Amino acid sequence: MASSSSSSSGTASPCGACRFLRRKCTHDCIFAPYFGSEQGPAKFAAVHKVFGASNVSKLLLQIPPHDRPEAVATIAYEAQARIQDPVYGCVAHIFTLQQQVAFLQAQLMEARAHLAQNAVTSHNNIENIFESAQIMMNMQENTKQKGVFFPSLS
Amino acid sequence: MASSSSSSSGTASPCGACRFLRRKCTHDCIFAPYFGSEQGPAKFAAVHKVFGASNVSKLLLQIPPHDRPEAVATIAYEAQARIQDPVYGCVAHIFTLQQQVAFLQAQLMEARAHLAQNAVTSHNNIENIFESAQIMMNMQENTKQKGVFFPSLS
Repeated sequence: MASSSSSSSGTASPCGACRFLRRKCTHDCIFAPYFGSEQGPAKFAAVHKVFGASNVSKLLLQIPPHDRPEAVATIAYEAQARIQDPVYGCVAHIFTLQQQVAFLQAQLMEARAHLAQNAVTSHNNIENIFESAQIMMNMQENTKQKGVFFPSLS
Repeated sequence: MASSSSSSSGTASPCGACRFLRRKCTHDCIFAPYFGSEQGPAKFAAVHKVFGASNVSKLLLQIPPHDRPEAVATIAYEAQARIQDPVYGCVAHIFTLQQQVAFLQAQLMEARAHLAQNAVTSHNNIENIFESAQIMMNMQENTKQKGVFFPSLS
């Protein structure tokens, strides 16, 4: 994201912001590290149109330098989103994500309800297996007793 | 959201935006319907600080009137979020929602994996029940035959 386009003397190529604003780029240009001379003008155009160069400059100056790259990235993202969708801007993305969260929560609740139902069914099945096995063992015992000690009832 | 503070003559109380900007509020004020004279100035202050009155005015003029209330609401939301969090603004909300979506997707995958595993276990349990029942029926048949026709082997 950083650009080395600004110069200490202001004689080298200006940064993307200063190029867009057609102004001299000084060594302490607040925009220079984030708006390169090549891709920067287009990126800055959106930021300038939505927020205004002056507002963004003031905002960046109140943020510690190590946080500025993230601030510029989010400002550029918001600006681009507002140009693409003038009514909702990036809030459209928030609405979409909120809907996605609600949908996933509903799906998860449904899956968990099935799991809970399965746990009950599984418990009943195990009880059935034990019941069948018990009947089987009783019959085996009965058969053995009948065969050995109590022959045919007929 | 609408305000009736602006007047056709401009002599009634100005809207929240014009009050904040200390200017005359005309009958065609673009801000008047969305910034009331009471709550409006504070709301407009955030919008003005982040976007600038001129930029918001231009933006609203390019949007059909029926879409403007939503546009003002999302702009005010973005402005407030940027003031509260100068580095990330409302993009922080997007990050949080994205993380929530990823977490829910992982939870849902896990629940579905359990459901799939349960389906296999349930199928095996049912096979076991049928197997037990079959053994039981075979033994019943065997017992009957032994009892009636083939008395004790001992």
